[in-house]
Amino acid sequence: MTAPTTSVAASTGVGSGHAGRTRLLTDLPHHDGSESYVPTGTPALGDAVPVRVRVPHGPDGPGDDDVWVRVVQDGEPLLVQARPERRDEHETWFVADVVAHNPVTSYRFFLGPSTRPGGHRWLTGRGVATRDVPDASDFRLSTHAPAPGWGTGSFVYQVFPDRFARSTRADAHEAPEWAEPRAWNDPVDGFGPGAGRQLYGGDLWGIAEHLDHLERLGVDVLYLTPTFPGRSNHRYDATTFDRVDPLLGGDEAFAALARAVHARGMRIMGDLTTNHTGVGHEWFRRALAEPSAPERDYYYWTPDGHVGWLGHPSLPKLDHGAPGLADRLVRGPGSVVGRWLAGGDGDPDAGLDGWRIDVANMTGRYRDADRAHAVAREIRATMAQVRPDALLVGEHFHDSGADAQGDGWHAVMNYSAFTRPLWSWLVPHGAVRSLELPGPIARRDGCATVATMREFASAVPWSVTRSQWNMLASHDTPRLRTIAGSADLAQAAATMLFTYPGTPVVFAGDELGLEGRNGEESRTPMPWDRPGDRDEATLAHYATLARLRRSSRALREGGLRWVMVDDDAVAYVRETVDERVLVLVARAPWPGAHLPAGTLLGADALETLLGDAPLRVSGRGADRVLALPGDGPAASVWRLV
Amino acid sequence: MTAPTTSVAASTGVGSGHAGRTRLLTDLPHHDGSESYVPTGTPALGDAVPVRVRVPHGPDGPGDDDVWVRVVQDGEPLLVQARPERRDEHETWFVADVVAHNPVTSYRFFLGPSTRPGGHRWLTGRGVATRDVPDASDFRLSTHAPAPGWGTGSFVYQVFPDRFARSTRADAHEAPEWAEPRAWNDPVDGFGPGAGRQLYGGDLWGIAEHLDHLERLGVDVLYLTPTFPGRSNHRYDATTFDRVDPLLGGDEAFAALARAVHARGMRIMGDLTTNHTGVGHEWFRRALAEPSAPERDYYYWTPDGHVGWLGHPSLPKLDHGAPGLADRLVRGPGSVVGRWLAGGDGDPDAGLDGWRIDVANMTGRYRDADRAHAVAREIRATMAQVRPDALLVGEHFHDSGADAQGDGWHAVMNYSAFTRPLWSWLVPHGAVRSLELPGPIARRDGCATVATMREFASAVPWSVTRSQWNMLASHDTPRLRTIAGSADLAQAAATMLFTYPGTPVVFAGDELGLEGRNGEESRTPMPWDRPGDRDEATLAHYATLARLRRSSRALREGGLRWVMVDDDAVAYVRETVDERVLVLVARAPWPGAHLPAGTLLGADALETLLGDAPLRVSGRGADRVLALPGDGPAASVWRLV
Repeated sequence: MTAPTTSVAASTGVGSGHAGRTRLLTDLPHHDGSESYVPTGTPALGDAVPVRVRVPHGPDGPGDDDVWVRVVQDGEPLLVQARPERRDEHETWFVADVVAHNPVTSYRFFLGPSTRPGGHRWLTGRGVATRDVPDASDFRLSTHAPAPGWGTGSFVYQVFPDRFARSTRADAHEAPEWAEPRAWNDPVDGFGPGAGRQLYGGDLWGIAEHLDHLERLGVDVLYLTPTFPGRSNHRYDATTFDRVDPLLGGDEAFAALARAVHARGMRIMGDLTTNHTGVGHEWFRRALAEPSAPERDYYYWTPDGHVGWLGHPSLPKLDHGAPGLADRLVRGPGSVVGRWLAGGDGDPDAGLDGWRIDVANMTGRYRDADRAHAVAREIRATMAQVRPDALLVGEHFHDSGADAQGDGWHAVMNYSAFTRPLWSWLVPHGAVRSLELPGPIARRDGCATVATMREFASAVPWSVTRSQWNMLASHDTPRLRTIAGSADLAQAAATMLFTYPGTPVVFAGDELGLEGRNGEESRTPMPWDRPGDRDEATLAHYATLARLRRSSRALREGGLRWVMVDDDAVAYVRETVDERVLVLVARAPWPGAHLPAGTLLGADALETLLGDAPLRVSGRGADRVLALPGDGPAASVWRLV
Repeated sequence: MTAPTTSVAASTGVGSGHAGRTRLLTDLPHHDGSESYVPTGTPALGDAVPVRVRVPHGPDGPGDDDVWVRVVQDGEPLLVQARPERRDEHETWFVADVVAHNPVTSYRFFLGPSTRPGGHRWLTGRGVATRDVPDASDFRLSTHAPAPGWGTGSFVYQVFPDRFARSTRADAHEAPEWAEPRAWNDPVDGFGPGAGRQLYGGDLWGIAEHLDHLERLGVDVLYLTPTFPGRSNHRYDATTFDRVDPLLGGDEAFAALARAVHARGMRIMGDLTTNHTGVGHEWFRRALAEPSAPERDYYYWTPDGHVGWLGHPSLPKLDHGAPGLADRLVRGPGSVVGRWLAGGDGDPDAGLDGWRIDVANMTGRYRDADRAHAVAREIRATMAQVRPDALLVGEHFHDSGADAQGDGWHAVMNYSAFTRPLWSWLVPHGAVRSLELPGPIARRDGCATVATMREFASAVPWSVTRSQWNMLASHDTPRLRTIAGSADLAQAAATMLFTYPGTPVVFAGDELGLEGRNGEESRTPMPWDRPGDRDEATLAHYATLARLRRSSRALREGGLRWVMVDDDAVAYVRETVDERVLVLVARAPWPGAHLPAGTLLGADALETLLGDAPLRVSGRGADRVLALPGDGPAASVWRLV
């Protein structure tokens, strides 16, 4: 353990680029949407909801009359005075009613007095501001029904069917003409033009044979990338939405897998392209063959032909303004969305528990049309009819704030507020090529990372944050192990994934330490029969993390309070009303720091939940401090009681 | 002149709270929507528009292959490589095509290489970022028609009719029963419960008699707060929209005033409450009297009665979902909006040139209904039919970004990106009570001020920025002179108003140095016959500023490049392709600073346009610097040629 050295005074908010400086954030006012601050449950329109904020005492701190909530109603801000509710030697909790006047009502805290030398402060999701900041980062109270309980914060395991497991039944399949068959242990070519044609022949029977692996790992939800037939190994180019690809075992294998998953108490989710179909899709073939067919209007056409996703002619884009398309694809029990949720023969155990929607960010958007939210709401309405506890998650590689207000998608793939900033913190300088930038992923320091995570997260109601799909990698990205560059750092990142608000989503194989430099290369067949290619220590770490998360309500449902940021280490507290867990993640050895124990530690009792490094308490009474160890790369989790 | 002392290296972006530090922003990359960077004119959907960015040379600067534009199309970001177009010893200009793929297309610049030690940078409307920032601050290319030429950047003079001038004809009027008549020179009671009932009896004939004052001042547009009859001196509680208040001279005075204004080459704008009517409005009285009348549905009702604006029963809120309301209020030539634009007897000279819409931020918004943009678009459509060069401006006291994308209101009252941050910079600590906060307006430093102005402005396309209604005060606020606390500082602020992008809006009386601590008290009758209450130096300053603005295309149409920020002084450059103007505004004496002349100064020639302080050039060649004088409170304007 490195002795703590630097320990600077708490500062307001988290900026960026303060190289090498440790910033303690423990004596800042705090609010989030978790149970300590906002009652659990979804308010109805018009309900008054008591919201609470904790305000540390201090020379600049507000008096009892100086805390207000600014609520925006119908586009107009109103101030509601908060009243002190309880206080201890460190802080005062204030409470005020926020009326859920609009479907999503935004609010922030005013911390006076305005006569203090720096003027009043605002508390928003970005943190404390000493100037006016736009509403975009205000806290939000949502009246939209959140994700179902099973889909909130549970461990999702993502499987790319062609690469997970191949049953012996797959040997009977003829390779289709588009495919280039591969043996299971052949290396994947991630960069060649034929990447999408490499067919390893994994099937759903194969997945069913390996459910023990999922169960041992602690998985709650199996998420499958598309299982409809396509002309590629990824199947995002569906040729029909009516049946499961025979190469995967067809409808029979699908129903059997769904039943097997459900029998183990797990859930299963599918993947649907609402933005486009494959060029070989039966709708598109009819549209081409019969210009007067209704399917013609399902697609966009220009004088040069059809419009393809990002210009790819193989993926014709769907026009959600077309009459009839909604009924076939998204609306009602008979739609694609509805039928697969209901299950074959109407047996819900044979159906999906939810959908992940591909390219949700572009769905329904084209030029001057924007039906993205309408499509999402339509799918939600269908779910309410067919399978009321179904989960709907949108793919969103990009800034998803405006699309993740909870009216449509329950949650989105949280690349912008979790994955991407974390990658930038983990990655060695210049080591890994970025997916969407002309160069490598930039390496940023802890301040920049946390500021980015907070700013993107602030756009989203807490009811969505609780269910956001956090990932460290997916079938579209480099592998975590490749980004981190070491098993230790990858494991530390995984600790963050499992201790962070939201839903941890693990791409199958990351728990074995597999590598890959881009999405294609990362679609590694699972090395079931190659023990040397499996990192058993990492596998054990993931299982430990899943157990840890299950054992702690604070980790599943608690708020998020950042308490320390350094270039190379970050620490945050997850809290419910009855539990407090401190997480420290370091990407490298760092100087360590002393945290004031004030609002963190009730008694002297500490319980180490994960990691070898001790958390030492020194000092007495109000002056107690917690000494954060300077180890790294490392992650530690302590319960503070 | 104070000798320049501190001069720190340029830093990325503008943070807040760097007390006493001068930050030079002159060697930062820059882009805005002005003609140097984006071709003038409104693109059609699908047009490719070349956009340019200037990138100073430097050790960390991008190479020729390292500048890209990230464009968001249909919700998905795409990168387009920029190519170097021209270069000089200081900087390189890059250009790339942005397709106006959506009605508003957002874009930002990627400045590589990613391999530089700090990683790549982004350039958005907030400035340079060394971490990911949300799309909210991206630049925007809009296909929406902008404000008409006459309404873009011209000098608007706001008149509150009861307090501007009283003609002898007004003596014939009986005071209505709600009114408490006042003599013209009686002091205004700004804080009593009867503030809205004090009737000074100004009328439209009185305004017509004083158009010489407007013309001498250099006014382009006369904007009148409501002229419909009401039950208050402010008339925001209309009892009808069909005629002008007889107390103001009625329809005859209105037509005569409009013709007189037009005869002098000026324009005239009205003020309409689309959010509510008065409780005495004929529609509302019918709604009360006949529950089956269609007017019943024009309003919102609860079991307790009607819904009033912000809970005021005197101002019943309109329900824009009601059948028939649109046709009467906003849609088509026969609507209220249309008829007053057309002018009485169909004489456009007797009609309005545009509308300022009261409480635009709340219009059409109530609980789960949000028709604000729909109402604004409807009004625009009516304007297109009736008076195609009409101007539509929304009142927006609050964060207006999402409502100011140009699809509805051409522009909004720019309290959030201009007025409010400037007040915070001007105001002495604790001196002036805030309108909407529980305490005084906070005093902030230059960094916080500029960061706030940039962040709020970044939400808006440049085509809107050019027309935003910038104010230093209005009939709803304290007077500028009271906020600034001195004539010198108020004049410096006025210089900023007239040299800033957008439309300078002056509340009648500010040019005479009138005072007032809140909106009511600021509705001071003009001291036409009290020379001792008129600040002639300030009046002359405003006239000078109007002439200065007219004389300089850069001040009217140029871009905005911040070049220096200090606690007590800020400097920016306004540029067209053929003119460059430097503006320095100091709220107090400050140390002065040395600006690298690099991208600012073509030759040694300098022309002082306003102010007494000299701008000295020293050094030679690439090392030349401009010495900004440390005077304050002061404002200076120089043309750099």
